[in-house]
Amino acid sequence: MAMAERRPVALTMGEPAGIGGELSLKAWLARDSDRLPVFFAIDDPARLTALGAGLGLSVPVRAIDAPADAARVFAAALPVLPETLPRPAVPGRPDPANAPAVIASIRRAVELARDGAAAAVVTNPIQKKVLLDAGFAHAGHTEYLGELAGPGHRPVMMLACPGLRVVPVTVHVSLAEALRLLTTERIVATGRVVAEALGRDFGLAAPRLAVAGLNPHAGEDGALGSEDIQIVAPAVAALRAAGIDARGPLSPDTMFHAEARARYDAALCMYHDQALIPLKTLDFFGGVNVTLGLPFVRTSPDHGTAPDIAGTGKANPSSLMAALRLAHEIAGHRAAARAAERVA
Amino acid sequence: MAMAERRPVALTMGEPAGIGGELSLKAWLARDSDRLPVFFAIDDPARLTALGAGLGLSVPVRAIDAPADAARVFAAALPVLPETLPRPAVPGRPDPANAPAVIASIRRAVELARDGAAAAVVTNPIQKKVLLDAGFAHAGHTEYLGELAGPGHRPVMMLACPGLRVVPVTVHVSLAEALRLLTTERIVATGRVVAEALGRDFGLAAPRLAVAGLNPHAGEDGALGSEDIQIVAPAVAALRAAGIDARGPLSPDTMFHAEARARYDAALCMYHDQALIPLKTLDFFGGVNVTLGLPFVRTSPDHGTAPDIAGTGKANPSSLMAALRLAHEIAGHRAAARAAERVA
Repeated sequence: MAMAERRPVALTMGEPAGIGGELSLKAWLARDSDRLPVFFAIDDPARLTALGAGLGLSVPVRAIDAPADAARVFAAALPVLPETLPRPAVPGRPDPANAPAVIASIRRAVELARDGAAAAVVTNPIQKKVLLDAGFAHAGHTEYLGELAGPGHRPVMMLACPGLRVVPVTVHVSLAEALRLLTTERIVATGRVVAEALGRDFGLAAPRLAVAGLNPHAGEDGALGSEDIQIVAPAVAALRAAGIDARGPLSPDTMFHAEARARYDAALCMYHDQALIPLKTLDFFGGVNVTLGLPFVRTSPDHGTAPDIAGTGKANPSSLMAALRLAHEIAGHRAAARAAERVA
Repeated sequence: MAMAERRPVALTMGEPAGIGGELSLKAWLARDSDRLPVFFAIDDPARLTALGAGLGLSVPVRAIDAPADAARVFAAALPVLPETLPRPAVPGRPDPANAPAVIASIRRAVELARDGAAAAVVTNPIQKKVLLDAGFAHAGHTEYLGELAGPGHRPVMMLACPGLRVVPVTVHVSLAEALRLLTTERIVATGRVVAEALGRDFGLAAPRLAVAGLNPHAGEDGALGSEDIQIVAPAVAALRAAGIDARGPLSPDTMFHAEARARYDAALCMYHDQALIPLKTLDFFGGVNVTLGLPFVRTSPDHGTAPDIAGTGKANPSSLMAALRLAHEIAGHRAAARAAERVA
């Protein structure tokens, strides 16, 4: 059972020209109706105040000195740990001059989570290209967080919605590259991180992994490709030999309807769209991205910065709110696991 | 608007060791509650009678001489155009000696549909391997039907459920082979058949095609693979140049939720699971397989012979019943289109 986790969740700024600020404001407005945990933004208080006024959102913004102040402030105002932007954020027009503040917001959130002042990190979406142009040498959030975590950690992306958790073994690469990258070792290493996280972060005592085949009908005994026999099946065997309740390779098209989903706790998928298509078909607005395998808790909404609707008030905060709730829940499970370890 | 189509639908035997017979019997039992069209089986009356008795299904079976007798019989009994099996059908154990009757059932259904005695063909699932061993030189139903249709026809598989129609451009091949087979020509040729069928068979005056990208995020401007730029985008342009309302390449993971589906009438997918995963996630038991591009109407359930549950009474007839309804509906649209041509 999860312990009550009383520390606040740290929410990063994300790309200030995107929809992140609007999402932060809207999430705070829904804090009671959607039973959100206490959170604070690491952002520019002046820009959030101006954004709220521009969008007609009644959100008092209050600068705080430390995460410990968030709980006291949260009922009456959105607590913000200041990270000042050197230039005004213009919706839809990312400014490389603001990139260092975007990166600093992520780094500070991680530091606060690592030293225990924050329960978890929730990241608003970033625009990778702008950060790359500003000298950010990481393929994305997940890779940067992996570096902040230090060696010995294998960050693994999970997408979660009510009733389905999926983990793509290969991620942001072309389909041809995914075929080249897929190895038994990669499936096993990912599966081990997932099984451990289902226990520690989701409180599942005996987690069940469903391993998708690569090919249609999982290769139909080799008639539709040899990879399911040569790569996937040995990975399932290795995971089982390691004591993990893994099943597969399963026919990818028959494993995502309600009855099939009830038989497992997470689906290990061989490529990006094999994981993302069922998840986003089932729950387009409420999916959450969780980074497993890190020494701190991190979630994020599973969408981008949406520059096309930034500043219009049309941004849907469902995914960010689900990310805040899930981050708090995972932090609670981790705290409970730590408490159990101390007792034992 | 569809004309009332009064001719009966021809339903084939399928693999007699599979669940086909049980499905035929259960569909007839649900004829009123599920508003099924009049249909007749091309099957062995004695084996259907025995099967019904064994499963405790009260289905009177009546042999008929011609499709024209089906309507008169249908209210009181399942009309069956006899195709005698040389050997008793044993659930779960296909017998090559029965293969010629299985094939004859398909051929006769097609003949009856082509000469106008039947409105459409609905095929029960077959076990390809048994037929291949018996000398059947076709990769499957669709290919055999293409041959029966004669040259000049390009059979195209569509899967349909309420709210979604998908067409895989490459079908029963490994993912690696799908990458090799995918060409602009293939996408365009498939898209043209689909657009024409949406008009003629589904009564849509201005059909809208959504064309999926191949890679995650449709390749993200080339960062995740070049195929979406080099193969898919030119196909979309060619379809549009041919006067077809096609859009794409679309990000495959964001095109199957309810709001996105409302924007198109059929999704053209680049590989089997890109089409089948969303369809079977949304509607596992009610999907229908429709063969477009043939001179006769053909649908089938989108599942196999299920030898593991054959003879147990557990077979779910939802997909076959949806196939019967859709076949009748398409036949009505075709009849209306022919009538309109005669008037014009």
